[in-house]
Amino acid sequence: MVNVAIVGLGYWGPNLLRNFNANPDSNVIYAVDKSEALLEKFKLSFSNVDFVNNFDKILGDERLDAVVIATPVWSHFDLAKAALMAGKHVLVEKPMTSTLDEANELISIAEDKGLILMVDHTFLYTGAVGKIKELISQDSLGEIKYFDSTRINLGLFQADINVLWDLAPHDISILNYIIDEQPVSVQATGTSHTENGLENIAYLTLNYSSGKIAHFNCSWSSPVKIRSILIGGNKKMLLYNDMEPTEKVKVYDHGYEIKNSEEKNKIIADYRMGDISIPKLDMKEALAGVAMDFVKSIQNSEMPVSNMYIGRDVVKILEASDLSLKHQGKIVEL
Amino acid sequence: MVNVAIVGLGYWGPNLLRNFNANPDSNVIYAVDKSEALLEKFKLSFSNVDFVNNFDKILGDERLDAVVIATPVWSHFDLAKAALMAGKHVLVEKPMTSTLDEANELISIAEDKGLILMVDHTFLYTGAVGKIKELISQDSLGEIKYFDSTRINLGLFQADINVLWDLAPHDISILNYIIDEQPVSVQATGTSHTENGLENIAYLTLNYSSGKIAHFNCSWSSPVKIRSILIGGNKKMLLYNDMEPTEKVKVYDHGYEIKNSEEKNKIIADYRMGDISIPKLDMKEALAGVAMDFVKSIQNSEMPVSNMYIGRDVVKILEASDLSLKHQGKIVEL
Amino acid sequence: MVNVAIVGLGYWGPNLLRNFNANPDSNVIYAVDKSEALLEKFKLSFSNVDFVNNFDKILGDERLDAVVIATPVWSHFDLAKAALMAGKHVLVEKPMTSTLDEANELISIAEDKGLILMVDHTFLYTGAVGKIKELISQDSLGEIKYFDSTRINLGLFQADINVLWDLAPHDISILNYIIDEQPVSVQATGTSHTENGLENIAYLTLNYSSGKIAHFNCSWSSPVKIRSILIGGNKKMLLYNDMEPTEKVKVYDHGYEIKNSEEKNKIIADYRMGDISIPKLDMKEALAGVAMDFVKSIQNSEMPVSNMYIGRDVVKILEASDLSLKHQGKIVEL
Amino acid sequence: MVNVAIVGLGYWGPNLLRNFNANPDSNVIYAVDKSEALLEKFKLSFSNVDFVNNFDKILGDERLDAVVIATPVWSHFDLAKAALMAGKHVLVEKPMTSTLDEANELISIAEDKGLILMVDHTFLYTGAVGKIKELISQDSLGEIKYFDSTRINLGLFQADINVLWDLAPHDISILNYIIDEQPVSVQATGTSHTENGLENIAYLTLNYSSGKIAHFNCSWSSPVKIRSILIGGNKKMLLYNDMEPTEKVKVYDHGYEIKNSEEKNKIIADYRMGDISIPKLDMKEALAGVAMDFVKSIQNSEMPVSNMYIGRDVVKILEASDLSLKHQGKIVEL
Repeated sequence: MVNVAIVGLGYWGPNLLRNFNANPDSNVIYAVDKSEALLEKFKLSFSNVDFVNNFDKILGDERLDAVVIATPVWSHFDLAKAALMAGKHVLVEKPMTSTLDEANELISIAEDKGLILMVDHTFLYTGAVGKIKELISQDSLGEIKYFDSTRINLGLFQADINVLWDLAPHDISILNYIIDEQPVSVQATGTSHTENGLENIAYLTLNYSSGKIAHFNCSWSSPVKIRSILIGGNKKMLLYNDMEPTEKVKVYDHGYEIKNSEEKNKIIADYRMGDISIPKLDMKEALAGVAMDFVKSIQNSEMPVSNMYIGRDVVKILEASDLSLKHQGKIVEL
Repeated sequence: MVNVAIVGLGYWGPNLLRNFNANPDSNVIYAVDKSEALLEKFKLSFSNVDFVNNFDKILGDERLDAVVIATPVWSHFDLAKAALMAGKHVLVEKPMTSTLDEANELISIAEDKGLILMVDHTFLYTGAVGKIKELISQDSLGEIKYFDSTRINLGLFQADINVLWDLAPHDISILNYIIDEQPVSVQATGTSHTENGLENIAYLTLNYSSGKIAHFNCSWSSPVKIRSILIGGNKKMLLYNDMEPTEKVKVYDHGYEIKNSEEKNKIIADYRMGDISIPKLDMKEALAGVAMDFVKSIQNSEMPVSNMYIGRDVVKILEASDLSLKHQGKIVEL
Repeated sequence: MVNVAIVGLGYWGPNLLRNFNANPDSNVIYAVDKSEALLEKFKLSFSNVDFVNNFDKILGDERLDAVVIATPVWSHFDLAKAALMAGKHVLVEKPMTSTLDEANELISIAEDKGLILMVDHTFLYTGAVGKIKELISQDSLGEIKYFDSTRINLGLFQADINVLWDLAPHDISILNYIIDEQPVSVQATGTSHTENGLENIAYLTLNYSSGKIAHFNCSWSSPVKIRSILIGGNKKMLLYNDMEPTEKVKVYDHGYEIKNSEEKNKIIADYRMGDISIPKLDMKEALAGVAMDFVKSIQNSEMPVSNMYIGRDVVKILEASDLSLKHQGKIVEL
Repeated sequence: MVNVAIVGLGYWGPNLLRNFNANPDSNVIYAVDKSEALLEKFKLSFSNVDFVNNFDKILGDERLDAVVIATPVWSHFDLAKAALMAGKHVLVEKPMTSTLDEANELISIAEDKGLILMVDHTFLYTGAVGKIKELISQDSLGEIKYFDSTRINLGLFQADINVLWDLAPHDISILNYIIDEQPVSVQATGTSHTENGLENIAYLTLNYSSGKIAHFNCSWSSPVKIRSILIGGNKKMLLYNDMEPTEKVKVYDHGYEIKNSEEKNKIIADYRMGDISIPKLDMKEALAGVAMDFVKSIQNSEMPVSNMYIGRDVVKILEASDLSLKHQGKIVEL
């Protein structure tokens, strides 16, 4: 049994509380928030949990094995570092930290102390992403040529992070999970319609030395909600449309073959349209998978799926995107 | 009656031939192509037209008022210049020319000689774009904040131009038609999966001094066909989905108001979800409108909707996108 | 404050328990089920409720004002009658009873004793149906000419009722709510793929003396889930697609005008295609509206929206459909 | 080479003219219509065809092998009979005749004289229906349990036939093509919103002794255009959505198994949700296939796909539907 504390009861924390409480191998012993109102609100439904307002105090409790951090991004580093230093395993909300340096420091501590440090990139635990990973692992798609993501809606404008830090971690973590190659450079363009200068619309491109390309379209200002990723391989292509209730992944036996043509003005690629298949997906709740993976990784001293290196790579790309945005879209080498 | 020659009977020329032939105010007197096979193919169905293989010869025919050019992009300048120099009005396929200098030279000749020079940006004559123009002219959307276009499919790879030169002219011409402000800089990223180095996937961003942003996602390598444009104003937003058979334009009474918030971590925009309306569109063939506008502009010495200045601005942006692509996405000031 | 007992904790009962518990004007004092396992399961989350296994005993409790019955259809009559006889207001799951006679007997008791008898036709409390009712009340659609419903999916085969009794009450109650005219006859066809002879696919037609027609397509055997209703008026037409997450109601300014033509082989109706509008809907939980209406009707001695007469008319049609099915689709006069 | 006359140049005739003209194995020698205006209209584009206004005269021409009849339904019998009696093969528009007796008489003549008599049920020649036939022939779906068709739109009201005679032949011919079993009875309900009493909305059910059921929903009065057929087998199910531009056929590995349950109130079917596949379809023009099949059947003395027996069975069902409609939906045994 792994004893867990949930830190932060704002938007996402209650979901973590519910899932770790329901997990048969974990025991939520603390829930922490500075807001007395939030503590009161959840007390009634979780009579077995101790609701407290002091984070530091719980770290001294020897029964406590792990800390789950669901607080604003700027506070992730301090809280996670304190927990790791106290010998606790850590699951932290995405994005892992505000800077690459912070991510590296946390990783270094976790490695030194042999602790699990995991980031809650929830999408990696969905049936859809699991199926995509499986298809790519089986080489069903062939060599991946591009990754094109659109995640737009009429969303809440965050006051401390721009739209890339808010939305792109989902897609970048999926990209990192399914593709081994590392991008060599980052470019981002965008605009802010608020006085604080944080972009509410932004576009991010990742360039790869192999010629692969990844692109992310993120917006809080779209009247329609789109959450889709196109992945093109040289054998097959795939559309992951997360707005579809059940038919989320469509695999197209479509492709193009490059021909060497010596004549000018000749078409130099042939395309092929074949069958389409829509695999059945595991529809279980992704967050239950997050909780299970964290607990099992602690119990078995194994690397979780959504591990600290994926979390760090996401932060590295986001940090580079900030630099690119600040310099009007200049190329930032990684 | 305006006497017209159609030059080029490849992919698009036959459609122009059919439409100018059907137009009651124009008379197709020549159709020109170097291919005898193509000339033979269309001779039977258009018995009133003279099918010839020599472009230069027709320019000497005094009966001829106007030349319609539907040949590869690299040949537009020479053919259009010769026609203008011979005193003929010109309608040229999009994109107008291969370079901005060429476009400027053609405009200069047309201005000097008082001739109509028009570019076939067909989409400007669709019921959908007409309705969008009308809505924006009536200030229904308010100030335009962004323009986000996706035009992707499993398309023929062109051998002489990249995907931006092939697909983006549609969207850039629509942008230029409906928005008065000129962009201040251009950035483009992309990748080529062929040896000729021409991008088959590319992303283009236009930046405006007002904070407006326009983005174009173009691909010949997508298994799904998407042709959509999102336009966000501060009053309403709009989706133009050209794949819908009849409900192509959806107007959302959705928006966001920016609030000045003094507290950190406070949401600083409120959003509003309202009704949606789908206006009825004029469904007549756009190319018939192109033919009609060209003929009427000649007859009345008026500026056509898809005029040479819109055509030139499209080429200016495409040329800048080439420069940006060549330098891995650097900012190109306009 | 209205004191309520929830009877039956199977599929739907827990939702009623949750909503009546959350309603500020009602107080759930009992939850009743024969299954000790179900009683145990919910005890923890509702510490203020008395979980008991004996229905009869609670009827003697003078504090109890109202009984909410969520048990199998065949048990509705006995439980509701006992509750009414004990002077309790009753909310019963749909369909109200197994026979028209039973429905009439309950209504008679409720009328005599001045008690509220309400049926949980939840859909009447959705934002979509509320909007449709509003549009029809304002005569936006004109005279209703037809009602065409499809409610099909790969659903659980019920063992005690056929697919019409399971699915059609939703659509028939909506029909009864929005249309004043009563049907004059009923016809139903269908087939059973099980040995118990209960139809898993069935079609129901209601005929009206005005020429109006209503049709219901119900199936537990469709691979796709469709929940849609088309309503045609002589001014406008409407599509209610409940599978759409937000754009559930589409109002078409489309219609046809009948012309008197004396020539044979002449088209005798003109059709018109106009704008389409998608009104914004109230998205609050429908069942909260059910609870609120029941409680307010008790407090104010008013007729609820989903009243016993609508419930009775649904049963009348279902009973007639059984007779029609038994005689291979014969016309049953109402 | 088969010499053909096209009779009737109204709505559909010109398409037949174009396709038989393009077919390399047929030669259109006559086009017949009473309207001089129509004869004039098409003369220019088909210089090799003799445009005449007298049907009887062409029958005496010994060069003529076959007659293609695209006139109103009520005239089919007389024209087809005359052609057959003159020894000509006949292709007639759907529905074949106005009555079953007429169909039988034509069949009898064709059989006696050894002539091809074919009905233009065009849909049988689409890639979609071809694929469905193939799947069913391979027993991919298992035993067919139901066929559920919806063909509705805001269509032209015909003045001589009701909506079933206009729209249902498409679906009934598909049903007859893919299913061997004959229905045992027919029921139809509907309503007319015009003074001529011809139904503009109608529902048709076919009952089978095996328990199979087929249902047809036809309307000229729907604001949305739906053309879909659901086919359920005990192995797999299929959706044929003709409004989809390319993904017209979706095969669902979904099903339900019937269980023998002895407990009351127990679910008695288990359902299974599996993968979905969308086969690539042959997208060639269906009417070219009709022309080719007619010509080849004449040349090889073979039975065409859309043969006279399928055509007759369609008329038999339509005639029975008329009787059922006239008697307010009574069961008509076949």
